[in-house]
This record gives sequence, structure tokens and C-alpha cells, in this order.
Amino acid sequence: MQTLEEIKEIFARDRFATENGMSIDDASEHCAKCSLTLTDRHKNAMGGVMGGVHFTLADFAFAVASNQNGERTVALNTDISYIGAVKGSRLIAEAKLIKNGRSACFYIVDVTDDLGNLVAVVKCSGFHVSK
Amino acid sequence: MQTLEEIKEIFARDRFATENGMSIDDASEHCAKCSLTLTDRHKNAMGGVMGGVHFTLADFAFAVASNQNGERTVALNTDISYIGAVKGSRLIAEAKLIKNGRSACFYIVDVTDDLGNLVAVVKCSGFHVSK
Amino acid sequence: MQTLEEIKEIFARDRFATENGMSIDDASEHCAKCSLTLTDRHKNAMGGVMGGVHFTLADFAFAVASNQNGERTVALNTDISYIGAVKGSRLIAEAKLIKNGRSACFYIVDVTDDLGNLVAVVKCSGFHVSK
Amino acid sequence: MQTLEEIKEIFARDRFATENGMSIDDASEHCAKCSLTLTDRHKNAMGGVMGGVHFTLADFAFAVASNQNGERTVALNTDISYIGAVKGSRLIAEAKLIKNGRSACFYIVDVTDDLGNLVAVVKCSGFHVSK
Repeated sequence: MQTLEEIKEIFARDRFATENGMSIDDASEHCAKCSLTLTDRHKNAMGGVMGGVHFTLADFAFAVASNQNGERTVALNTDISYIGAVKGSRLIAEAKLIKNGRSACFYIVDVTDDLGNLVAVVKCSGFHVSK
Repeated sequence: MQTLEEIKEIFARDRFATENGMSIDDASEHCAKCSLTLTDRHKNAMGGVMGGVHFTLADFAFAVASNQNGERTVALNTDISYIGAVKGSRLIAEAKLIKNGRSACFYIVDVTDDLGNLVAVVKCSGFHVSK
Repeated sequence: MQTLEEIKEIFARDRFATENGMSIDDASEHCAKCSLTLTDRHKNAMGGVMGGVHFTLADFAFAVASNQNGERTVALNTDISYIGAVKGSRLIAEAKLIKNGRSACFYIVDVTDDLGNLVAVVKCSGFHVSK
Repeated sequence: MQTLEEIKEIFARDRFATENGMSIDDASEHCAKCSLTLTDRHKNAMGGVMGGVHFTLADFAFAVASNQNGERTVALNTDISYIGAVKGSRLIAEAKLIKNGRSACFYIVDVTDDLGNLVAVVKCSGFHVSK
């Protein structure tokens, strides 16, 4: 079993997530919680949080949850529903395993703000490259 | 009708897209082509292009295509299928209108690399906030 | 508030669902549980349960949950992930509200068999025609 | 190469599709066109065409397109966007291959009515069980 520190070290190499301010709060087999503090650089042209921010944070949580202990997974299909506006100053994504099959796996990632508002629900279908 | 220069000026304010290297190549009513040059900062922990990069570029193209000439649209639901690996050094997203209804609209965004490989197909369902 | 009997009476008019053996087990505001007994006529060419069966049952549960007490909702976007094989002799779909906004609403529908196996997860994005 | 007659014979065993009035108009490797004549039994409780009808026809076309000449494919993830109302008396689904990879494949299925109105766009991600 990889420790949280080992997992954090591996995913520090995810430069798109980390250079956009995202980090791992917690992770264990098939679970992950990631977050970011929102700044002006996460904004879209209308002044809201850009959809790519919600998605990238959720995708990062999925990657952390599904690539541990030698299991390697790639995303095949991911969909995001934008549930409500962000009101807080942080975003938190929590990936939960729905099913880990032989070839495929499914996760749901809830994205909330730090005030507890649900802002997006993401469904990820992955494919095991090695297991 | 907004000119390409006016559209570019508005979307220069999309800081998440632009600070991650994305720009508008072309845009006209309900169409947009956006692109980025891939660098190390677009990589995930495995050394590939992070899924959030494909998605953010596609979402940016959707936003540009669906927010012109006073029409304002927010995404409700977006899904991405990862079709194949990126082999080139640039990513290009082209948003095409499927249907622009009274309240809702639908776009498909093809994401290719500069060698012509299709790397992702994105379907966007949006909702008109004003029209 | 509509009673369960009133709801059942309205949705008995959903001929595609009912003539394919589907019925309402339980329903209350923004919730619904629907089920069917599997027969040979629900099979695909490979002898398994046809994907349209899972989907139709889930869509029926979504329609029942989101069309009560004068609120009328149409589906805009629905996606289904096929999680595992059906092993039992019945299918059960349970629709749960994620968010009921002013114009849009979101539900997740879990489809299980009567042995408790999760066979599909369905995410529905709807649009209020009247509320 | 299987002939159209051989393909039709195999998929006549898809009882859910065929007993709901669906048939194959045309099929060749990785392509299929299926259709049905709408009757009262395809209606939902509001008198429109039930979403499960659009979906089942599209899923049938996907199955026919992706299960030919010994290649066997199961759906992993399918999403449908409801683009517009059905105005005609028939529905036609045409499945087109986006990519046929080693393990996974992707199709887009356009669902139109016989007046040429686009009523739904369906994206299917499948997984090869044998190839």
C-alpha cells in the first residue's frame, strides 16, 4: 500500500494540476480528495470560475484515486454537470469508486465549494492499462 | 456582428484559458477554433497531456462560439471522450453548432493535434442566459 | 401534493414504459422507484439484457420523479454507464434529486438487479417547461 | 465479410429492438442505419415520443455497427442529447464510427425523423470483448 506521502510525491508531477494551484488533501485506495484556492487566474471571460477548473480538479481526483499501488488507469469518457454557482473561495473534489471491474472502472466525483455548495457532478469511466 | 478582433478582446479576459497558453485562431457566429502549443506544464503525472487540457481547450472553444453578438450561454452538461493519444506538439479545438434552440443549444467540439490525429470528441449542452 | 395513486394513473399513459413491463413501485416529490420483471423480450441479439431496457427504466424513473405537482420537466441530456452484468430476474431504477434549480434540474438514477448488483448509473439533466 | 442478410438475421434476435418495431435498413462494417415507424405505443405520459425510444433505436444501430465479422463490442458509456421535437412519423438512427481502437471504440449516432429534423445526438463508447 502506498502512503499518502508517496501518492503526493507521484502526483506532484502532474504539472497541469499543480501549476494551476491544485493539491491532494487526502488519498487512499480508490479514493481521493483534492482542492484548490480560487484566484483571478481561474476566471473565465464573464468573471465566473472557468468550467475547465471544475473539470481539471475532478479529473485530478479521479487520476489520484485510480492510479495507486501499481494499478494504472486512463480515462475513456468523462462527463460533467454544472449544478450550481461557486460562492466560496475554494473548490474541493472528492472521487468515489462506483465499480472497479477487470478492464473498466467507474467513479463519481462531487465538486463542492468551501461553503458546502455542490457545484458540479462528474462521472468518469476509465480503462485499466495495467492492474 | 462582432469582428474577430472584438471577440479576441473579450475572451482575452478568460484568464484560465489564456494563462494556460490557449488562444483563438478563428471565430464567427456559433463557430470557434482555438489552439495551444503543448509544453511540459500541460503534462500529467504519467508524462502525457492532462485530460483537463483537452477539456479546457474544448470548453474555451464552446464559450467563444456560443457567446457572441449579445447571446450569452452557460454550459449545463459537457462530456468528453478520449479518442486517441496526442502525437503532435499542438492541440486544436473546433466547435461546431448542432442546434441553437430558444433555451438550449448543443455543440460538438473536435480536438485534434497538429498532425491531424483526432484526440477527443466533446459534446456540450448549453443554456441561454440571454439571447 | 399528488398521491402515489394519482402519480401511477398519470404515468400509466407512458405506453412505451408500461407496454415493456415497467411500473412504478414508489414515488414522491423528486423521487421515484420503478421496476420490471425481465423476460425474453428484453433481450438483445447476444442474449443479454438490451441497453435500451436499462435506459428506458431509468428514464421512466426520472420522468416520474421530475413531473409531479404541476412541475413539468423534459430531459436535455442523459448519460448511462453500464457498470455490471444483470444476474437477477428483475431490474429496479431509483431516481434521486441532485439539484432542482429554477430552469434546470439534475438527477442520478441507480439501476440494480433484484440481487442487489449495481448494473447501471444514469445521470439526467432536465429542463423545466413549467414549474 | 457478412452480408446485409446475415447481419439482419443475427439482429432479428434482438427482441427488445424488434418487438418495439425497430429494423435494420442498411449495415456494413462499422456502419448501420436503423429505423422505426412511430405508433401510440412509443408515447410517453405527455403524448410525446418516450426518450427510451430514441435511445433504444440509437443503441440498436450502435450494436449492429460494432458487432460484425467476428468483432464483439459491449457499450460502456452512452450519452444522448435531445436536440429537438419529433415532427415526422418515423425515426431513423445512423451510427458512424469515430475511432476503432484496440480495446475501445467510439461512435456517434444521429437520430432524425423522416422530415429530416435532427431529434437526438448519441455518443457511444464501447469496449471490444473479442476482435
